[in-house]
Amino acid sequence: MDNLRVVLVSTRNPLNMGAAARAMSNFGCTRLRVVTPYELAWREARSAVGAAELLAAAEEFGSVAVAVADCALVVGTTAARDRALEHEVHSPARGGEIIRARLATQPVALLFGSEKRGLSNEDLSHCHWLLHIPTRGERPSMNLGQAVAVCLYELARTEGAEAADGPAKLASTLGLERLTEVLFEALLESGYVKEQSAGATREKIRRLIRRINLTDADAEVVLGMMRQIVWKLRTGRGNR
Amino acid sequence: MDNLRVVLVSTRNPLNMGAAARAMSNFGCTRLRVVTPYELAWREARSAVGAAELLAAAEEFGSVAVAVADCALVVGTTAARDRALEHEVHSPARGGEIIRARLATQPVALLFGSEKRGLSNEDLSHCHWLLHIPTRGERPSMNLGQAVAVCLYELARTEGAEAADGPAKLASTLGLERLTEVLFEALLESGYVKEQSAGATREKIRRLIRRINLTDADAEVVLGMMRQIVWKLRTGRGNR
Repeated sequence: MDNLRVVLVSTRNPLNMGAAARAMSNFGCTRLRVVTPYELAWREARSAVGAAELLAAAEEFGSVAVAVADCALVVGTTAARDRALEHEVHSPARGGEIIRARLATQPVALLFGSEKRGLSNEDLSHCHWLLHIPTRGERPSMNLGQAVAVCLYELARTEGAEAADGPAKLASTLGLERLTEVLFEALLESGYVKEQSAGATREKIRRLIRRINLTDADAEVVLGMMRQIVWKLRTGRGNR
Repeated sequence: MDNLRVVLVSTRNPLNMGAAARAMSNFGCTRLRVVTPYELAWREARSAVGAAELLAAAEEFGSVAVAVADCALVVGTTAARDRALEHEVHSPARGGEIIRARLATQPVALLFGSEKRGLSNEDLSHCHWLLHIPTRGERPSMNLGQAVAVCLYELARTEGAEAADGPAKLASTLGLERLTEVLFEALLESGYVKEQSAGATREKIRRLIRRINLTDADAEVVLGMMRQIVWKLRTGRGNR
């Protein structure tokens, strides 16, 4: 992510600048660039309590051309699909792949336009292609800070690396059979099991116990609970 | 997305409520629920200029238990990985698949905790599993509105999202809570529950019941078994 430059163009709202910076720090991205921001907003964003270091270290430029001059790939973001007429448009997933591949060796700029108008045609003319987050319904346009978060989330994605913590270990058949027996005992003692259908009930319990995908640890816990219940059913008397 | 309920728990900042609502409208999700929000913030969020209709239509609840009662799957979001000790934790990609499959037939609740503390242990005890957005660097915790946006973006994803045939219908939270209570009763009557740790044990049982993915039908069967056991523990005496 060290090669990524997030470029905010003509941003108006200081809260959005702060939100963009926060998303960047969440996803390990440090290089923020701003192009012709609304001065007041920019000053406010930088002086906000808890403003990220990366806001202080942000670089300011007078034009998109200069801000992206050192980048090998320039990607614009857009809420509209119709810009496809002039530019290729990729989803964050597909676009993310292309960007990640490029980031391995060269700087990439990701541009976000102003809250009101997005990127201008002039801004777009500096872009190799566009990235569009598919939205629905009557409100397609995303909040700037949220759009930045979704894009960086996609870029920071490391597919396959997430299988690292596999599912918990399932209980052994032996453990499940023990549990089956103890639950059967409890149900026998409680009068739930009818003598003439005891065999069928035991099978029903056995199937149930296997269906519920108990982990090893959970099976132990349930076994302990059921043993206590059986003990009480056998020895105790009603408490009330 | 009609079956998805976004549940904001103890949210403090009206801007975050507005941002969550905006992300929802971006991704075609309409059902917002709030649990014990900061009253002032909630009033401010609803009266904000341009507040989405879905803020006006949001439902307010006094507890997580009631807010998720009609949901078959309850997923909590967390910035911390260490909660994995007690809950299974999924990435948005993997978690998204599971949630989408469930949304096809039943309501799902996606919980977001307060900005300061996230979800409490009590809140978490109502969750089947947790969703964690992998972040990096020195600032792992995401802004609430941005976290909502990333989660909904993943859920709205259509790439390869076809679930072959839906999983068996899971028990509703109401059913699971009933089961939790009856099992607790049985353990109380049997002496398994110690007075000084009754609250912790109830939470432990609640988590266990949710972890084991009971179907509607199985939950009914187990409920019947446990009721019989409780009845016997209360009225009967040892048979031997």
